[in-house]
Amino acid sequence: MKIKVGIVGYGTIGKRVADAVLLQKDMELVGITGHSYNFRIEAAKKHGIEVYTIGDEIQFKKNNISVAGNFNDLLKKVDVIVDCSPKPFGADNKKKYIEAGVKGIYQGGEKADVGEVSFVAQCNYDEAVNKNHIRVVSCNTTGLARTIGAINKKHTIQRVRATLIRRATDPGEIKKGPINAIVPSLELPSHHGPDVRTVLHEIEVFTTAVVVPTTIMHMHNLSVDLKKDDISAEEILNIFREAPRIRIVSEDEGIESTAQIMEFARDLGYKRGDMMDICVWKEGIGVHGKELFFTQAVHQESDVIPENIDAIRAAMGFKDGKKSMEMTDKSLNIFDIKKKY
Amino acid sequence: MKIKVGIVGYGTIGKRVADAVLLQKDMELVGITGHSYNFRIEAAKKHGIEVYTIGDEIQFKKNNISVAGNFNDLLKKVDVIVDCSPKPFGADNKKKYIEAGVKGIYQGGEKADVGEVSFVAQCNYDEAVNKNHIRVVSCNTTGLARTIGAINKKHTIQRVRATLIRRATDPGEIKKGPINAIVPSLELPSHHGPDVRTVLHEIEVFTTAVVVPTTIMHMHNLSVDLKKDDISAEEILNIFREAPRIRIVSEDEGIESTAQIMEFARDLGYKRGDMMDICVWKEGIGVHGKELFFTQAVHQESDVIPENIDAIRAAMGFKDGKKSMEMTDKSLNIFDIKKKY
Repeated sequence: MKIKVGIVGYGTIGKRVADAVLLQKDMELVGITGHSYNFRIEAAKKHGIEVYTIGDEIQFKKNNISVAGNFNDLLKKVDVIVDCSPKPFGADNKKKYIEAGVKGIYQGGEKADVGEVSFVAQCNYDEAVNKNHIRVVSCNTTGLARTIGAINKKHTIQRVRATLIRRATDPGEIKKGPINAIVPSLELPSHHGPDVRTVLHEIEVFTTAVVVPTTIMHMHNLSVDLKKDDISAEEILNIFREAPRIRIVSEDEGIESTAQIMEFARDLGYKRGDMMDICVWKEGIGVHGKELFFTQAVHQESDVIPENIDAIRAAMGFKDGKKSMEMTDKSLNIFDIKKKY
Repeated sequence: MKIKVGIVGYGTIGKRVADAVLLQKDMELVGITGHSYNFRIEAAKKHGIEVYTIGDEIQFKKNNISVAGNFNDLLKKVDVIVDCSPKPFGADNKKKYIEAGVKGIYQGGEKADVGEVSFVAQCNYDEAVNKNHIRVVSCNTTGLARTIGAINKKHTIQRVRATLIRRATDPGEIKKGPINAIVPSLELPSHHGPDVRTVLHEIEVFTTAVVVPTTIMHMHNLSVDLKKDDISAEEILNIFREAPRIRIVSEDEGIESTAQIMEFARDLGYKRGDMMDICVWKEGIGVHGKELFFTQAVHQESDVIPENIDAIRAAMGFKDGKKSMEMTDKSLNIFDIKKKY
């Protein structure tokens, strides 16, 4: 029996989760919800995805989009909803999912208490098995948790300091700025540090953040204090090589910026030019005594997509996290592109 | 017998022509030339494309890229080369193609005299049949020729005035500006106007151009004087609807900028998020007496790709231009997305 999945909210994350669900052999995409007619819905139609309306049907019919039902109709047909609504609508919707007896996967924009667990597959899959409500953390938190978690499995981390240089908005968005300024986050720590601890409970992480005028990827500059002395950069590189969903990039292949990572992702043929791996620069890894430095880039539109797929399986009781990640990564073709620098 | 094609220069255009050739049933991609190791070559390897070196083999071998031969080896195996080198290397290479007895397709950065004909398939396919050297015009000239040519087939044009608002560079490029200025072209007319006349010989076109800080698409604002009075905007819209490789976009579907066109292309699943159609805004078409206004967007990385494929067929003696365009458009999936606004 395939897991029946519905997607609520068909924006940056929702449309990608829908595509990823379509690629899973153990899942069936029942449909998505549409709030208003737009080019995203037009593309969904081209891909044969069923649309359930929230609100007014007329605009869909006027544009030759056939409608399969409404939000409640969708809830009757699914085992699990992946809620990709903008915050705080995910938390608002939760009671509907409880009433309908369906499980809910939520995104990182929601507060942590929307889920029984906050989730990054390679860090805490086991915690999420059979839970009814799981929160996949945000793109930045996912990026931090993947690399910090991988290091901490091998070498105990004492503390992490990170500066997040954030993209201002997503590529299709034209109503947000800045276009020529750097905007500091005046909350200290930025919310990302505490959010990492919802997944990696034991690690002390303090983050600051700034927003810069770009739409293509966040960058994180990290300083990590290890307990053990004199671990080599090569050893850290090997940890990243072996961990899932982390990719080593290098100046040697002409990758000197986020722009070239995105271009590489386009050349590799990934849908929408997405890069789901966290990308760490080989040349940017440095060790000084107990201190480790590295720089990573995070594709905000797509790094959480594999986590959403694994969260669906965990919620439905699939116990083997490693196996789930393998299935997900193979289906998304992440598996074969891991680099061996 | 399939047409044996080689690609010289594997950058923005070359890599896309290579992918497009792979999709043609009547063509075989023999290989590409590689100048230096980089992520583009890494992606080519993933796609199983053979690499012929220009210059040093060592860097390729060091990075586990097997090399099928050199430039001359490639020339021995092909019927036609699509030269996508940066200008003026295409013209420099021409004598090698003549010596080797292979046909050459060149790009619009080269001077017009590199080819026996300058080419936009829907305007002058017939002129190119059986020619040995064909120049596909630049992205901007292609965009202008498609829409102006379509109008002129139905209603004689007296003159065209156009302002080109140009993207500064391509998305993967980080060494060019501006990042916060508007740069006028101080050549009058800009080279695009005269270049349109290499394809549409009879039409008087005068263009000016400015460069703005964006990497995603050019925009053209056109004023067209028609011979006939009182043609309706709806009539013009219908001309564009019926012409190949022109797409009507609309605010109704949430497309208010180049950013949303690019996002739509990603959602539709086109490789690299490319948009090969010239996009004309429905709401931007206006008529005042004999004067017609419209606004179009041009995806500089990809609009010339179908032209390159058609140019290969024309060079090899395939006589039916309409049929060639249909084959090309179906293979690239342009065919089924024509909109019916």
